[in-house]
Amino acid sequence: MVTVSFPDRTWRDDVGPIEGITPVVWDPQASPPGEDVEVFVAPYMAPSDQIAVVADAPTVRLVQLLSAGADVALPVVPQDVAIANAKGVHDAATAELTVGLVLASQRGFDEFARAQAKGEWLPRHFRRGLADHRVLLLGYGSVGRAIAERLAPFEVSLTAVASRARDGDDLVDRVHGIDELAELVPEHDILLSVLPGTDATAGILDDALLAAMPDGALVCNVGRGNALVTEDALRHTGRLRFALDVTDPEPLPSDHPLWSEPGVIISPHTGGVTEAFRPRMVALLREQLRRVAAGDEPLNLVAR
Amino acid sequence: MVTVSFPDRTWRDDVGPIEGITPVVWDPQASPPGEDVEVFVAPYMAPSDQIAVVADAPTVRLVQLLSAGADVALPVVPQDVAIANAKGVHDAATAELTVGLVLASQRGFDEFARAQAKGEWLPRHFRRGLADHRVLLLGYGSVGRAIAERLAPFEVSLTAVASRARDGDDLVDRVHGIDELAELVPEHDILLSVLPGTDATAGILDDALLAAMPDGALVCNVGRGNALVTEDALRHTGRLRFALDVTDPEPLPSDHPLWSEPGVIISPHTGGVTEAFRPRMVALLREQLRRVAAGDEPLNLVAR
Repeated sequence: MVTVSFPDRTWRDDVGPIEGITPVVWDPQASPPGEDVEVFVAPYMAPSDQIAVVADAPTVRLVQLLSAGADVALPVVPQDVAIANAKGVHDAATAELTVGLVLASQRGFDEFARAQAKGEWLPRHFRRGLADHRVLLLGYGSVGRAIAERLAPFEVSLTAVASRARDGDDLVDRVHGIDELAELVPEHDILLSVLPGTDATAGILDDALLAAMPDGALVCNVGRGNALVTEDALRHTGRLRFALDVTDPEPLPSDHPLWSEPGVIISPHTGGVTEAFRPRMVALLREQLRRVAAGDEPLNLVAR
Repeated sequence: MVTVSFPDRTWRDDVGPIEGITPVVWDPQASPPGEDVEVFVAPYMAPSDQIAVVADAPTVRLVQLLSAGADVALPVVPQDVAIANAKGVHDAATAELTVGLVLASQRGFDEFARAQAKGEWLPRHFRRGLADHRVLLLGYGSVGRAIAERLAPFEVSLTAVASRARDGDDLVDRVHGIDELAELVPEHDILLSVLPGTDATAGILDDALLAAMPDGALVCNVGRGNALVTEDALRHTGRLRFALDVTDPEPLPSDHPLWSEPGVIISPHTGGVTEAFRPRMVALLREQLRRVAAGDEPLNLVAR
């Protein structure tokens, strides 16, 4: 039997009994359970110190995160303990938010919301749409592909960029390497960033790159806030539009100029945070723990 | 040679030369051209009196509308003159607006817009999403199918309803008849109406139907405003949400209570009104006039 700790009873109960697994509850803000935990399921959105408890639990051999990113866990989990992320679990919610933000900006929902607050029916004119536009998707992992799948029927052209160039799939002819980014940007009307938070991606959307985007283009960031240099973005508001689920700093202070710039739509880092999360996370935990009980390689291991 | 009148030079020039067609310009607010016009291309969003001019032009045998609906033309065009609509031309724009309105309401963009105006970063909690929801699509013609195609990758279940029950297609198992509507409504979280403006559809979304929708459900109307009884909608705000591109009355007067009800998002009848319209309309006009020149049956004839 493998002892698995869940951060609270609801996770334990939703996952339910699995052959070969002894479930216990371990809220890292309380004392560890009596049993020797081998698999530690971290709380959702746990800060580093709540994951660091595994350093004092020598029987733990796998930390299962509830997030797609592992940046919070990597520095505090001992090197000989494996880390698995929740790849795929947030895809549906994050991808639908992305399409929503893009449509909201392309179709002028920010303008409609201001008009609605004043009881004003805006006059009809031919506005920008989404169809016929050229979308550059920066980041083509699990979330990136989920976005591409959802954008595919919208009569757009889609270019995917990932850390390294590779062959395409049923959605894109090829995946471009990040080294081609500067050449690609001027040919696109919409830039979507789903880049994870790493040293390589910090500040990648800077003044030079923004300056290369066509007038009226949209930058939508649903990855990590620091991929976009906020100061540089502020230099291009008016000419470019921005739809941001993540910002730098985050949360954005109430007196930050970004809130009130024209053509800027901000959602409060709500990408994966919908009711779609729990059933998908429960399904992943079930599959993962069945593998652990069977002695198979766990899913979604994070390279260390 | 067949003489075809365009409402202005830009339409004539964008369509360009077509073998067998003599293009002229006829703005119905000015005098008719000297030539005997056989095909009259109506202005975009022309009121009835601008189409009624064909009654005094006995050579006209086809009126080509730039809209999907023919309700404005039917009463004023002589019975022996054919009417063709612009079916398909507005599909991309209307369908993307619909998905945008649905996502905006499901993901709380109205709440985010109010928070942004105050510089407020809302706390994180698990909000409603689109994935896993049950969508009831009321109206399954050209626009309805375009919406279904775009919703298909969003991990929703989709039920289509049309005036009469028929077999399904690659997107829905079957198309339900409108007589099944009352039974279907309680089993759905999102009701999308793309119904055209006819006597049969006026007031179809009334108090009884709204009362049958589950708590928290969304009603999205992108068809004609009078399909939804506004007074009845006002009785259900708070319990239901509404995302309306069309309203009754329309435009909505500035002191109308609908503007400020909770959970109501209003866009100013902007469904088909994007830059996607013109290239698609030009392509349809080219195809239509090639058919006319060749003596073939015109596309999109409206039953009279």
